[in-house]
Amino acid sequence: MAATSRIFNFSAGPAVLPLSALVRAQRDLLALPGVGMSVLEISHRSPTFEEICFGAEADFRKLGGISDDYAVLFLQGGATLQFSMVPMNLLRTGETADYIETGTWSEKAILEAKKVGRVHVAASSKATNHDRIPAPEELAFSARPAYVHMTSNNTIFGTQFAYVPEVPDGVPLVNDASSDIFCRPVDFSRFALTYAGGQKNLSIAGLTVVVVRRDLLDRAPADVPIYLRYAIHAKERSLYNTPPVFGIYVLHLVLEHLLELGGLDELARRNERKAGTLYDAIDGSGGYYRAHARPGSRSLMNVTFRLPDEEREKRFVKEATAEGLDGLKGHRSVGGIRASIYNAFPEAGVDALVAFMADFQSRNG
Amino acid sequence: MAATSRIFNFSAGPAVLPLSALVRAQRDLLALPGVGMSVLEISHRSPTFEEICFGAEADFRKLGGISDDYAVLFLQGGATLQFSMVPMNLLRTGETADYIETGTWSEKAILEAKKVGRVHVAASSKATNHDRIPAPEELAFSARPAYVHMTSNNTIFGTQFAYVPEVPDGVPLVNDASSDIFCRPVDFSRFALTYAGGQKNLSIAGLTVVVVRRDLLDRAPADVPIYLRYAIHAKERSLYNTPPVFGIYVLHLVLEHLLELGGLDELARRNERKAGTLYDAIDGSGGYYRAHARPGSRSLMNVTFRLPDEEREKRFVKEATAEGLDGLKGHRSVGGIRASIYNAFPEAGVDALVAFMADFQSRNG
Repeated sequence: MAATSRIFNFSAGPAVLPLSALVRAQRDLLALPGVGMSVLEISHRSPTFEEICFGAEADFRKLGGISDDYAVLFLQGGATLQFSMVPMNLLRTGETADYIETGTWSEKAILEAKKVGRVHVAASSKATNHDRIPAPEELAFSARPAYVHMTSNNTIFGTQFAYVPEVPDGVPLVNDASSDIFCRPVDFSRFALTYAGGQKNLSIAGLTVVVVRRDLLDRAPADVPIYLRYAIHAKERSLYNTPPVFGIYVLHLVLEHLLELGGLDELARRNERKAGTLYDAIDGSGGYYRAHARPGSRSLMNVTFRLPDEEREKRFVKEATAEGLDGLKGHRSVGGIRASIYNAFPEAGVDALVAFMADFQSRNG
Repeated sequence: MAATSRIFNFSAGPAVLPLSALVRAQRDLLALPGVGMSVLEISHRSPTFEEICFGAEADFRKLGGISDDYAVLFLQGGATLQFSMVPMNLLRTGETADYIETGTWSEKAILEAKKVGRVHVAASSKATNHDRIPAPEELAFSARPAYVHMTSNNTIFGTQFAYVPEVPDGVPLVNDASSDIFCRPVDFSRFALTYAGGQKNLSIAGLTVVVVRRDLLDRAPADVPIYLRYAIHAKERSLYNTPPVFGIYVLHLVLEHLLELGGLDELARRNERKAGTLYDAIDGSGGYYRAHARPGSRSLMNVTFRLPDEEREKRFVKEATAEGLDGLKGHRSVGGIRASIYNAFPEAGVDALVAFMADFQSRNG
């Protein structure tokens, strides 16, 4: 099928991938050049896969500026499994972990941490349906937290941290960056552990990347299940058991594409331009479109907004879909519209949406 | 790259896939017909993916004859995560689980169960380097096991159960069928739980299938991590969190291929013919090639054998690789040669190996 028959995919994840990565994956799907087997069939112990896996790790470190003080792990189970792995590895019975509650995913992470130890909520945006990120001065940490957990971008509510929290000296800061990793430059050394499901800015569903400082690896109690121990994956460079081979391969293709584009500075420019165009259209609509997230907390990745009433929201989604603008229905927690515009989402798609918004408003004002 | 440039892939897993499934996946990789997005990009909440996911489940049930008394789950983490999930869901503190120890994977499963409760080894083939499956009369179960765990095929040693163990009344039988699921007809109702990593007979690495009797779903203690609870995945039909979308898609393509071929009876005929050809070549070599697994315990999926000395084994692997017979090096626990000939492995590849074996022996007798 020709690339021109592709539509604009505003899905919150799994989400759009760079076309160049898809084209390359398609070209080689029956047999990798010079290998005679599909990447779907190669042994994870083969030199061919080691080249892919270690190449992806090297590109990941290069793009993120990540030093060897950190292990970069390619795991399975999504952010959901990380909600449990983080406390199982870093929180001991009787200890307290601090969580900044900024949405549904933070809430789910808190529930899992409570199965392991105590949780202190350092700040929450729940009272206003998570329409903002708590300000730095609102963060009230416990006396001696085992770690502080944050969610840098909140897919459902369309909010994103514009700052890295200052945590008490020596306390590890843990970040769920599933929906905004590599959207702009970030200093990974400010975080003790960063994790991200693969299906938004990195690769496909089924791959999870964890960047963990090596001095934290030995904290897990002996009875933590083998697959849930960061240390074993770090020691075996993600090859303790069979890793998600194809997800790592796609990650490698995506990272090569991002490096060729010019790295995180260029990605930030593009993402700010895309999100800016969309927020300008919302704010300039005379109140017809209303953003859910407050200025200063707005996400570059997920733009959430409402229309005057639900009937028009339904019609908006239906008509947009018919015009090849897919996946715009908002999550039920917010309602309305959500436009997810991750790294690989093309600027032409944002322009098409903005044009559609103006047209829709003029017809349904 | 043309299909003709593909080589014969004897890898133990990830392993060869049906060419028809690869061709179909390649054709639609940029955009699924009528959808305008790649299967790598579609939302797991979309009707398109529900059709794929529920279609894969329906085909899985049809091929295996699996009733609605069982949930069929599409998970992540491989058999390694199942080694932990099984005891975490089915074994309580103070209870004992019985394990039949037939190789490396059973041993790893035992280590994980010991983190949760007590383990009784009901039989072991360790004394003879796992060259056989214990006979039914050797199985000595504990007084009241929470369950009995077996590994129906042992990839590393090349042994396979030729029978389904009789367990005490009401005791759940759990089977790790990672490397032989759907290799021949099996009565799934004899097992309370069957699990299988996807990367051998089913799909690609990163997908794990679990078939679990619904009456067992509620046994997990409250503090078991959310992702590790069978009940939540059963309730949400594998859509609690983002599942491994592409692995499920490939599974669907593979299952359609297997159903078209004629189902498990036809697969059994093919697999017996392939394995029979290879064991005949070994046994008929006048002792030049020696099978590791004893008759009666030999695997249809992984054929392990030795040559007169290690030097010739090395040369065998090297020369075979040069002739397009890839992945034949045996695991270090057995040494020598391992030919993995899963469902999708073509008969022509077995014929090519047998011809190579005869030629190699004549040149290096």
